[in-house]
Amino acid sequence: MYRGDPADPIAELTELFARLPGVGERTATRLSFHVLGAEPEYAAALGEALAHIHERVVRCERCGNYGAETTCRICRDPRRDGSIVCCVARVPDLVAIEKSGSFRGRYHVLHGLLAPLDGIGPDQLPLDGLRHRIEREGIEEVVLATPLSVEGEATALYVNQVLKPHGVRISRIASGVPHGGELEFTDQITLGRAFEGRREIG
Amino acid sequence: MYRGDPADPIAELTELFARLPGVGERTATRLSFHVLGAEPEYAAALGEALAHIHERVVRCERCGNYGAETTCRICRDPRRDGSIVCCVARVPDLVAIEKSGSFRGRYHVLHGLLAPLDGIGPDQLPLDGLRHRIEREGIEEVVLATPLSVEGEATALYVNQVLKPHGVRISRIASGVPHGGELEFTDQITLGRAFEGRREIG
Repeated sequence: MYRGDPADPIAELTELFARLPGVGERTATRLSFHVLGAEPEYAAALGEALAHIHERVVRCERCGNYGAETTCRICRDPRRDGSIVCCVARVPDLVAIEKSGSFRGRYHVLHGLLAPLDGIGPDQLPLDGLRHRIEREGIEEVVLATPLSVEGEATALYVNQVLKPHGVRISRIASGVPHGGELEFTDQITLGRAFEGRREIG
Repeated sequence: MYRGDPADPIAELTELFARLPGVGERTATRLSFHVLGAEPEYAAALGEALAHIHERVVRCERCGNYGAETTCRICRDPRRDGSIVCCVARVPDLVAIEKSGSFRGRYHVLHGLLAPLDGIGPDQLPLDGLRHRIEREGIEEVVLATPLSVEGEATALYVNQVLKPHGVRISRIASGVPHGGELEFTDQITLGRAFEGRREIG
């Protein structure tokens, strides 16, 4: 377990806060003093929630989503369409898709993307689980919803390659100018994709 | 003690993170998922540091600074000049002054400012302790280093009024254009103060 300078609990707390994403030394100091100035019950509650979060949250054995039980809320819900599975890189992506209300199937969370430079190769992606599900659950379509970044695209290509022999339909979410986007300020790659993916109307 | 929804530990943790200053719902969600994705030791260490911060950090009985013992590091240091005391609103202000290296006396922390609209009146400011110190410690000067805001100025005026009968010299930190400040972008009140506080040179 990490141990900071035991002589200075504020410095220790600040150092730990500063490891959070987007939190620099200044912000970490401000957070420490805020916690010290607030009621002790708050620090106790946040401390307890953090200390037990890894025990209380488990990965769904089927899809990898986070939940309190071994099978997640979405996998247990009989109203979800089991014939279509959306493959995402991380749970926050799943949460964003759920909030949008645009998908009523089930999920498969990779918990990562191909990143050869960071040592994450094809073997680290849990595709055996997804292949297993395709064989057993009557899945007809897999929607690849990894990010539209270089790593997300490479991962989508790889997953497509691995799943093809299983005879399921494989799709990729659309890429283009986002809602409310001004063409003037849209990057060239996005504009290129928007034209490639154009659809006939009327 | 605060208890969030026991059925959703991630939502509970997110709600607690969102009570930190400058942390909105989006950032809080990101922090929760970051903690879940990081090694469990980190969450345990931060949780423990938070849970015990109010036990491990106490206010100095003499000056109100935070420390591990009943008398703080600065009050214990015999090299500090005991004849001059700097009066600040909050401990982070003390820390900033210490970092600047511009003051070698001791401190007195008010842990607040006059704020009649928030119900913080003159009785809530711990000035009895400061008056007691003036009588006993041979203090010759009190530097008022409360913020240059409306509440900070009002508090400085009030502290000045209370301490005057004790026959100590009372000063206020200078107000003016900050280091590197462009006059073009300096507000009118600051410019006014910079002219009022001008000093003869050469």
